[in-house]
Amino acid sequence: MEDHSTTMEKIVSLCKRRGFVFQSSEIYGGQNGAWDYGPLGIELKNNIQKAWWKEMTQLHDSIVGLDAAILMHPRVWEASGHVANFSDPLVDCKDCKSRFRADDDTQISRENVEARKCPKCGGPLTEPRSFNLMFKTSIGPAEDSSSVIYLRPETAQGIYVNYKNIAQSNRLKIPFGIAQVGKAFRNEIVTKNFIFRTCEFEQMEMQFFVKPGEDEKFFEYWRAERMNYYPKYGIRAEKLRFHHHEKLAHYAKDAYDIEFEFPMGFQELEGIHNRTDFDLTQHTKFSGKDLQYIDQDNGNERYIPYIIETSAGLTRNVLMFLCDAYEEEKVADKGNDDDWRTVLRFHPFIAPVTVAVLPLMKKDGLAELAKDIQNELKEDFMTDYDQAGAIGKRYRRQDEIGTPFCVTVDYDSKEDNTVTLRFRDSMEQVRVPRSELAARIRAEIKNYRRV
Amino acid sequence: MEDHSTTMEKIVSLCKRRGFVFQSSEIYGGQNGAWDYGPLGIELKNNIQKAWWKEMTQLHDSIVGLDAAILMHPRVWEASGHVANFSDPLVDCKDCKSRFRADDDTQISRENVEARKCPKCGGPLTEPRSFNLMFKTSIGPAEDSSSVIYLRPETAQGIYVNYKNIAQSNRLKIPFGIAQVGKAFRNEIVTKNFIFRTCEFEQMEMQFFVKPGEDEKFFEYWRAERMNYYPKYGIRAEKLRFHHHEKLAHYAKDAYDIEFEFPMGFQELEGIHNRTDFDLTQHTKFSGKDLQYIDQDNGNERYIPYIIETSAGLTRNVLMFLCDAYEEEKVADKGNDDDWRTVLRFHPFIAPVTVAVLPLMKKDGLAELAKDIQNELKEDFMTDYDQAGAIGKRYRRQDEIGTPFCVTVDYDSKEDNTVTLRFRDSMEQVRVPRSELAARIRAEIKNYRRV
Repeated sequence: MEDHSTTMEKIVSLCKRRGFVFQSSEIYGGQNGAWDYGPLGIELKNNIQKAWWKEMTQLHDSIVGLDAAILMHPRVWEASGHVANFSDPLVDCKDCKSRFRADDDTQISRENVEARKCPKCGGPLTEPRSFNLMFKTSIGPAEDSSSVIYLRPETAQGIYVNYKNIAQSNRLKIPFGIAQVGKAFRNEIVTKNFIFRTCEFEQMEMQFFVKPGEDEKFFEYWRAERMNYYPKYGIRAEKLRFHHHEKLAHYAKDAYDIEFEFPMGFQELEGIHNRTDFDLTQHTKFSGKDLQYIDQDNGNERYIPYIIETSAGLTRNVLMFLCDAYEEEKVADKGNDDDWRTVLRFHPFIAPVTVAVLPLMKKDGLAELAKDIQNELKEDFMTDYDQAGAIGKRYRRQDEIGTPFCVTVDYDSKEDNTVTLRFRDSMEQVRVPRSELAARIRAEIKNYRRV
Repeated sequence: MEDHSTTMEKIVSLCKRRGFVFQSSEIYGGQNGAWDYGPLGIELKNNIQKAWWKEMTQLHDSIVGLDAAILMHPRVWEASGHVANFSDPLVDCKDCKSRFRADDDTQISRENVEARKCPKCGGPLTEPRSFNLMFKTSIGPAEDSSSVIYLRPETAQGIYVNYKNIAQSNRLKIPFGIAQVGKAFRNEIVTKNFIFRTCEFEQMEMQFFVKPGEDEKFFEYWRAERMNYYPKYGIRAEKLRFHHHEKLAHYAKDAYDIEFEFPMGFQELEGIHNRTDFDLTQHTKFSGKDLQYIDQDNGNERYIPYIIETSAGLTRNVLMFLCDAYEEEKVADKGNDDDWRTVLRFHPFIAPVTVAVLPLMKKDGLAELAKDIQNELKEDFMTDYDQAGAIGKRYRRQDEIGTPFCVTVDYDSKEDNTVTLRFRDSMEQVRVPRSELAARIRAEIKNYRRV
């Protein structure tokens, strides 16, 4: 019997075949840990980013945006602790030169590390050495130590070092948040699970600045907010769970992950951390600047704010939306065991293409009419047009990329100015006057609920 | 008499004061050549990017998007010629250790270079040496030459190496285009003019693949398209001009820049290049892969496509939109010589904030009513809320950040459910029923013309 479950292999294959995600520099044999987002992948990623950005900045009164540079002053990473501590333990085989992360038992067992025995060739291993995960480069024409600069390993620090400028220029009062989407880079020894763990990735982070003592209240607030967010965009709630950190990072007072059940099991999607005043205190020390907030409504009380962080992976979100949307569905009405369709059940806000316009035939002016309707729709919607092959096959192609609505133009359309509107999830079709089409699609998007 | 012209100093100052652009890592003394986009700056940049993306992908039938990784296989840059040729000539003073770009006469005169005399201390200069502008780092745990990787100095190559995957997965037929927005990095010796020339910047590139022989036709097409694009979003046509390249880059058959008149003079905003089959031929050689296009509609004719490139700076676009929007206007009705306002005349699609809601007073329930109206509007518009200070002062604050519409809630609003809609450019005010407010704003945006 054929396997109709959702596997990572199927996701990777669909992504390449339909143009969601390609291996980076594939014609050169590929670049490890880097992926390129193709025509559908970038629309998907953009939509996920836009949904998050809208939720954080447009809909939330006390959160503003930021886009800090990837290249920051190197002292930032001394203050944050990354220069000293952001490292993995590595061991090398002295014989076959293989290299392993000593703390990762999918790479090498604890026994092998302790016995210093290479799992590949049995040869002797070196002592574990500390390997810093930050990419290092130099800026300016000389390559001396004064010109060292890092690719940021996280976006959060860009928010911390700017917080006073932002609060002042935007006259923000605590509690307030700063949201940022951007790339970060980590020289990971082990990249794995497709776009789940990569050297180059994107984060969607929001740092919420609160008065010390109010941090626990806002921690709980954001924990609930973030968990409630994903189902709004169609993610199944039963695929999400919290993971409470028993062992906390040096900067954290409390921490939860939101985990999603990927094909390889529950894995971290987003972290919610109570970072206390750790980062701002460090930057105060290292920069010599006063980073206290001055509460003008309370007799100019001064304090270093506590920070509640919500830190989600954008590229991980892409993988989650793909995995959660993926379904192989037995198409009942045909009564045929072999008749299955692959469908991506994306929320219409998230789907890369919103409406596909399909002429039943190329001839007799149907193609021209369909193009005309597409032109009318494309000002407001991301559209596709397909005139190649049987209509059933074209529906399946749109199902496979998650297009929620197909508009079919047939001979009746020429007579009575109506079209067929076909729904991806139910495969139901209704007849709609052309003049009401855009409004109907807008209403369907607004009322969309995942079945 | 006060100077009311648009100067770079005024733009930089406004940007910092109101939260458009901050110096990167300012609390650490700043990071040269890097800038952070604050709450208004990131909205502005996002809107410019969205407008371009919509024009290219959503509205154009034969263009699709891509988002390639910044870290590409190092052979890409050998094929493109960047490893060998992407460099500036540098000279050093042997006495005072100052460093100059030998081909930049704002840094050092030709006479000084020839006489090898330092313009700062008069000391002797070294011979010019070639300095490659690519940032270099290493990937993987060992820092040997096999692990060298570059930060991409342009986004174009990501499109070229992916073009066959994209054409196949999306069943594209020539002519077609691939659009991409993303960061690029150049280790510039001289960064200048605020965000105009920086080490870290963003490009908006579209590469259009055509049949050899049709390249000149499409070159003219895209030259006209791109020049006509900017006025659609409010840029004054008289501020734009073409600059024809006399001396062509090694890959180009023809090249024009679109220049904008910045406060420091006309400068390049976007380049339109006929890159011929240079890049794809190089990648064929270096990758060993067949990168020919197979024309299935014409007896499987095979050829390397020619490429017409439109390459615009996103961060330069931000500077252009700021400079073009900036105006200090004498406010006539007050009859007072000192009464000037600063206004950013952004197109409503580009403006960081679309609607500001202002209660005339905080008290008597006006603040609550205004908040209620803001909540209604914010699902569809980027809104702001301001209750601090005199209403005239609040209008000026919104003018200064380019908010096209202000909604004022007063005592009458409580009685008759109407509000005042105030227009940024004309400063005119009209009374609008609350129930019609959103539709009225939408119509005003659609019909907006810069005066």
